[in-house]
Amino acid sequence: MPKIIDHDQRREDIIDVTWQLIVEGGIEAATMREIAKRAGFANGALKHYFERKDDIIEGAYERALQRIGDLLAREVEGKRGLEALEISLRFTLPTNSRTEGAERVLLSFWERCAFNTDLDHHYGRHLDNWKTGYLQYLREGREDGEVRTPVPDPQLVSEMVLMNIGATVTRAVSPEHYDAEIIEQQISDFVARLRQGSTAA
Amino acid sequence: MPKIIDHDQRREDIIDVTWQLIVEGGIEAATMREIAKRAGFANGALKHYFERKDDIIEGAYERALQRIGDLLAREVEGKRGLEALEISLRFTLPTNSRTEGAERVLLSFWERCAFNTDLDHHYGRHLDNWKTGYLQYLREGREDGEVRTPVPDPQLVSEMVLMNIGATVTRAVSPEHYDAEIIEQQISDFVARLRQGSTAA
Repeated sequence: MPKIIDHDQRREDIIDVTWQLIVEGGIEAATMREIAKRAGFANGALKHYFERKDDIIEGAYERALQRIGDLLAREVEGKRGLEALEISLRFTLPTNSRTEGAERVLLSFWERCAFNTDLDHHYGRHLDNWKTGYLQYLREGREDGEVRTPVPDPQLVSEMVLMNIGATVTRAVSPEHYDAEIIEQQISDFVARLRQGSTAA
Repeated sequence: MPKIIDHDQRREDIIDVTWQLIVEGGIEAATMREIAKRAGFANGALKHYFERKDDIIEGAYERALQRIGDLLAREVEGKRGLEALEISLRFTLPTNSRTEGAERVLLSFWERCAFNTDLDHHYGRHLDNWKTGYLQYLREGREDGEVRTPVPDPQLVSEMVLMNIGATVTRAVSPEHYDAEIIEQQISDFVARLRQGSTAA
């Protein structure tokens, strides 16, 4: 009987191995040769599944986003407005251990993105979706009378995105400078500012 | 007459070339082979100047910090408190073209740091210095009665650091999502909050 190869499973295995290599040693450690070796492929056989290294890296990155996204979706299910926003902020900021490892994959991916136009556009799409979600929660919060700050929504979204990316980098690069308590307090203060009808802004 | 080799100049040249390679193609493009080739060294001759690739990368990173630091020092000379703080924020946030290119070097360095303990500690030292500067300006601002927010200084410093790192990544990775106007406004609002005696915090 001929051996049946599950190609989707093979792709998943390759991404598993790549994820692990990135977490251990960064983007430089995830060479095609090393990926093939760990996944038990002959050199060159990877090409049947992924044409370029970037496609594999992108797969690992998609998985990082998916992993965070799936966990988050369960948390915000049935929620809206300010409540959903606060849950998202606390969840996507790397203050919880369930997303550990993902920060390193994200950081490696960003480095790669900065020098690769295809990946760059892909990250742009993700950022768009991310911002759209925050904007929706803010709009609902304003409808519900919970969000009263005069600061415009695009600026609030920018604040959240920069805080999130900054925390992700700090945690991956210099964990001894990553203070979860302070970041939790930053989120609480941010949410409190959203509720305020008038600020210095 | 024997040729006199200026070894310091050679080191500078190697770092120049590495900086350029990183800006063009990221950390992966800055291989020892490529650095040697561009700097006009025989393969292996680099070792006389830098033992490991990480030492060269660190040199390029130090230069990125130095470049930003030197420019900034001129801007804040003779200033203190809130004025110095606002100048620093506007300057180190990547809203000005004089630090262009440096973001990419920083991002590559962070990626490298996340997987290398030696570099990591070095970045920790830099973060310490950076935070110490902000803390001093905040203390002076409180002495001068300009900074009145009840939010504790370490949290304010964290806010500034995360905003800064987040903006650096966004600008390098996805410039079309980098909105200098919004970020300038974020800084203005942040400074206004420092002046406020009571906030929701």
